[in-house]
Amino acid sequence: MSGISIIGTGNMARTIGARALAGGNTVEVIGRDRAKATDLAKALGDGATTGEWGTAPAGDLVIVALLYDSVVPAVVQYGDALAGKVIVDISNPFNATFDGLAHREETSIAQEVAKVAPAGAGVVKAFNTVFRHVLEKGRPDIFIAGDDVRAKASVEAFVKSLGLRPLDAGGLKMAHWLEGAGVVTAGLANHGVGNFDFSLGVTELPV
Amino acid sequence: MSGISIIGTGNMARTIGARALAGGNTVEVIGRDRAKATDLAKALGDGATTGEWGTAPAGDLVIVALLYDSVVPAVVQYGDALAGKVIVDISNPFNATFDGLAHREETSIAQEVAKVAPAGAGVVKAFNTVFRHVLEKGRPDIFIAGDDVRAKASVEAFVKSLGLRPLDAGGLKMAHWLEGAGVVTAGLANHGVGNFDFSLGVTELPV
Repeated sequence: MSGISIIGTGNMARTIGARALAGGNTVEVIGRDRAKATDLAKALGDGATTGEWGTAPAGDLVIVALLYDSVVPAVVQYGDALAGKVIVDISNPFNATFDGLAHREETSIAQEVAKVAPAGAGVVKAFNTVFRHVLEKGRPDIFIAGDDVRAKASVEAFVKSLGLRPLDAGGLKMAHWLEGAGVVTAGLANHGVGNFDFSLGVTELPV
Repeated sequence: MSGISIIGTGNMARTIGARALAGGNTVEVIGRDRAKATDLAKALGDGATTGEWGTAPAGDLVIVALLYDSVVPAVVQYGDALAGKVIVDISNPFNATFDGLAHREETSIAQEVAKVAPAGAGVVKAFNTVFRHVLEKGRPDIFIAGDDVRAKASVEAFVKSLGLRPLDAGGLKMAHWLEGAGVVTAGLANHGVGNFDFSLGVTELPV
């Protein structure tokens, strides 16, 4: 059981919040618009509270569920309020045609977050390869990447509390290739699979 | 049923050759070292022949099963001998630490092959996310990417003849992200999964 704070009040915040509560975690919802956060917390029900944007979140694990280009600015704005926290970046920085990343250099939102995060915060990339409705209805594998062992263990425990399998892909620089796996997932949806009702996962031998 | 030519005499050539024959295709084995190609063709058995390095391959589908840094040079050397062929790049251009690609710019071996391939040749990336022994023993999903619709359809038919599922991820530029998926696969093997007895694949809802 973990204390989770979710920065964001959109669909992904709602889905992760609902699964987190179902998994026995507490959930704090934080939005720039306090009324939206209060509405989402109310909709999520028992165990959900509302936090104040920009102040130290209640949860040890802070999931930033914002559009990709708002993630780094939010972490900058929070500053030392995130000291000692585990910051989880779930974003997909798709380009306009969904067949590449918005940044052309070999980086990721998670790596950029790590550059601006306060001392003692651990940054983990997770959940970005999963379509929202699959996270809601299915049991997709959750790929994670990060350099901070303690932070990664904390995210793995959280993922397990959701009844899902965390799969460590390596250090934080692997976040770039997990964002790339998000691009592959979008490509498969738009081409070979032809729909969004699937997830990328690990299949063990024998298959 | 397709006519397949495999350029290369290593483990991946042997595994793809064996599965191709089992799927009812003909297989031509081509090596710089003709004796090695003859040995492999003999080991593969009925339906396998040996071709001459650098001359027009017998198969319409030419699988280049060489180390990644030999792929483009081989296609250059072949030149017009590959005109009209479907060229399949299966390589993984890993960096020295297996956590990134050898090229830092946003390209792929498949895209570099397309730059030097003769007119009328179609280039397809395929098979690179699959560990060799999993291809031998299992039924992994085969991700493919390419711009040439006819070439891609031909590779899809070949993959199906192996009893495997081809999954089109998009145009040839997606080959960069499939190479990235190869990096993720290596990362999972070295971290979260902890072994190489798995493949990356698509799991449909409900799961």
